[in-house]
Amino acid sequence: MAGCMDLETSPLALPFPEMPPIGGVKLRVARAGYKNWERADLTYAELAEGTALAGVFTRNVCCSSEVEIGREQVKLGHARALVVNAGNSNAFTGAAGDGSVAAIVGAVSDVTGIGADRVFTSSTGVIGEPLPHDRITAKLADLNATLGADGIQSAAKAIMTTDTFAKGSGRTVSIDGKLVKIAGIAKGSGMIAPDMATMLVYIFTDAVISQTALQTLLRTLTDQTFNCITVDSDTSTSDTLLMGATGASGVDVDESVAFAQALHDVMLDLAHQVVRDGEGATKFVEVRVSGAASDTDARKVGLAIANSPLVKTAIAGEDPNWGRVVMAVGKSGAQADRDKLTIRFGDIIVAENGWVSPDYTEAAGAAYMKQQDLCIAVDMGIAGGMATVWTCDLTHDYIKINADYRS
Amino acid sequence: MAGCMDLETSPLALPFPEMPPIGGVKLRVARAGYKNWERADLTYAELAEGTALAGVFTRNVCCSSEVEIGREQVKLGHARALVVNAGNSNAFTGAAGDGSVAAIVGAVSDVTGIGADRVFTSSTGVIGEPLPHDRITAKLADLNATLGADGIQSAAKAIMTTDTFAKGSGRTVSIDGKLVKIAGIAKGSGMIAPDMATMLVYIFTDAVISQTALQTLLRTLTDQTFNCITVDSDTSTSDTLLMGATGASGVDVDESVAFAQALHDVMLDLAHQVVRDGEGATKFVEVRVSGAASDTDARKVGLAIANSPLVKTAIAGEDPNWGRVVMAVGKSGAQADRDKLTIRFGDIIVAENGWVSPDYTEAAGAAYMKQQDLCIAVDMGIAGGMATVWTCDLTHDYIKINADYRS
Repeated sequence: MAGCMDLETSPLALPFPEMPPIGGVKLRVARAGYKNWERADLTYAELAEGTALAGVFTRNVCCSSEVEIGREQVKLGHARALVVNAGNSNAFTGAAGDGSVAAIVGAVSDVTGIGADRVFTSSTGVIGEPLPHDRITAKLADLNATLGADGIQSAAKAIMTTDTFAKGSGRTVSIDGKLVKIAGIAKGSGMIAPDMATMLVYIFTDAVISQTALQTLLRTLTDQTFNCITVDSDTSTSDTLLMGATGASGVDVDESVAFAQALHDVMLDLAHQVVRDGEGATKFVEVRVSGAASDTDARKVGLAIANSPLVKTAIAGEDPNWGRVVMAVGKSGAQADRDKLTIRFGDIIVAENGWVSPDYTEAAGAAYMKQQDLCIAVDMGIAGGMATVWTCDLTHDYIKINADYRS
Repeated sequence: MAGCMDLETSPLALPFPEMPPIGGVKLRVARAGYKNWERADLTYAELAEGTALAGVFTRNVCCSSEVEIGREQVKLGHARALVVNAGNSNAFTGAAGDGSVAAIVGAVSDVTGIGADRVFTSSTGVIGEPLPHDRITAKLADLNATLGADGIQSAAKAIMTTDTFAKGSGRTVSIDGKLVKIAGIAKGSGMIAPDMATMLVYIFTDAVISQTALQTLLRTLTDQTFNCITVDSDTSTSDTLLMGATGASGVDVDESVAFAQALHDVMLDLAHQVVRDGEGATKFVEVRVSGAASDTDARKVGLAIANSPLVKTAIAGEDPNWGRVVMAVGKSGAQADRDKLTIRFGDIIVAENGWVSPDYTEAAGAAYMKQQDLCIAVDMGIAGGMATVWTCDLTHDYIKINADYRS
């Protein structure tokens, strides 16, 4: 019972990992209490002077004030403070939305002396209800007294909404004999689709990196990680990924492949954890597409399979219904030749040459589908285009959670 | 209990209407019995010599042999016989699929003397299992003896799969003082999305019309009717709409607006009935979009709303969650300005000027959502683009039906 709705913890949950503390990052959490949650819902991160900040935001055009303002602020490339509210997204709240952001930023600035343009806010939760920012500023006004210093796990918990477990991932990389650390947290479990999920992600590193290099890297790696997951094809109005590099390690990583790889791993790990906490999920599904006419086509096929309600319900029912995979390939809009398709469930060749494989047995398929982590692989047999996307199944609990979320 | 799975009849079901008999059309049904259904599953229609035939088929590129062959045959523009199997789609069954179609067509041709190129077959049901066509040809081989003459309601029942009620619609139009009749039947309840649904539709008329005019009219009206409905965004491999004009009335309708309007009404009525039988549906939802930058943009917005699992689950929960409508507008890809949107539930203005309407009350919204037939209207406030689409809610029964369909 980690979430706000007395939801059972996802059967796909992972334990919170050991995470390296990041020099130059101070985390605090508190309970603003605008939801009836008996846990912290307000997170505050203070970043050392000189921290480079990069960010990626939702492409949903009906986005929140936080996203609109953050998108502009990130161009400055620096941040000293992040504030996160969980429970109310402050999206579609008209002029009042901008006012709430200004009030929160103002309160932080007053107490800490940090310039308003270096304070970032994010909010997540219900759309269209005014954010009771007084409850937040009341906590921020006496920041040092009311907010205890906390570890990153507390922050990972405080940013949750319908999440059933806290999500974190960290790496320590050795570069020229010196250690660089990366630690990230994420929240998100519904309204998850590429560009991006209903997701908030905060990543910190003690690396030295220019804001331009960090922004480019973050954008590229987002396309390979968070933009390859889908829970329900819905794209949130509030998605935000912010990454701060404090420079505390003194190690310059502008050109480091090892750093990029470690950051990729952290981001993919967090993205997978978001899928593992997909609302109602009981299966974690990798959809691997190869042999497509192009990478773009492969991605279309992957997302058509991963977003198909009929494929997702079949997976929930542990039904090796490869006919629905064929249907999804055919409707994807990608170039396809029915008779060149090869479909595998794990290592089992299910269909090839336009029909069920002669060696395939329904018993083998059914046995495979009982596993918690599944891989559906489709080779299009056309050219070299490839893509991998990740999703979960569509279950009764998704309906239960989303038919009753507001009430 | 009308379907194959002991499903409860949809709460949105309509009674089968009175339908005019169409001169030149003979209908027969039988039980081929390749499913464990205690009802007819094989439908045979014989059309008078000279019947003009037009057809629209699925755009799913992994389509069935029936669709591939039918698409070619329809270019000839004439048909004398239609055969429909319910329970097995014969899709993705390799070379065997073509063989099954040939066997069925051959059997009809042998018994009736009708040329093979004038016999159309359709199959609907599970994908990827060989069609036991012997059971069909066994019935067809002794057509006159084994198949009793039946009314159109029997045919509407025999083509069902997971449908919970038989779908029909008819119109009689007076043109220059003479009567022209149209009668149509449809099946479909899941794998429903534009271009087209998992749907079989057969429409008959005694009008005199050239094949070219009929084909053009059918294509146009399909875009305004069947291509505006969505149950689950999945597009079937077998969708087929065939229309035969026998000419028995002697009335030429090539240029008749009244005929086109009546045909539109029949098609829209059938399309709505398919949504009303959407798997697990408890609400029939019209999504009306106006004020968009273009009709194309309006359609994008309409489908984004109608296909959003979060919107559909909120409707299932009778939750007036207009925030999710805002989210769907924003993710649709259409040009949108958050602060110019107006959202109505029925006559209730819910949101305007970028926020909840000052007159809106949650109680009024909640009361409205308890209705069975709902209208969500979105005005984009940009230009004159309009579109209307129809859908249903996403419920526990959708999951139940689709997690267990094959087993």
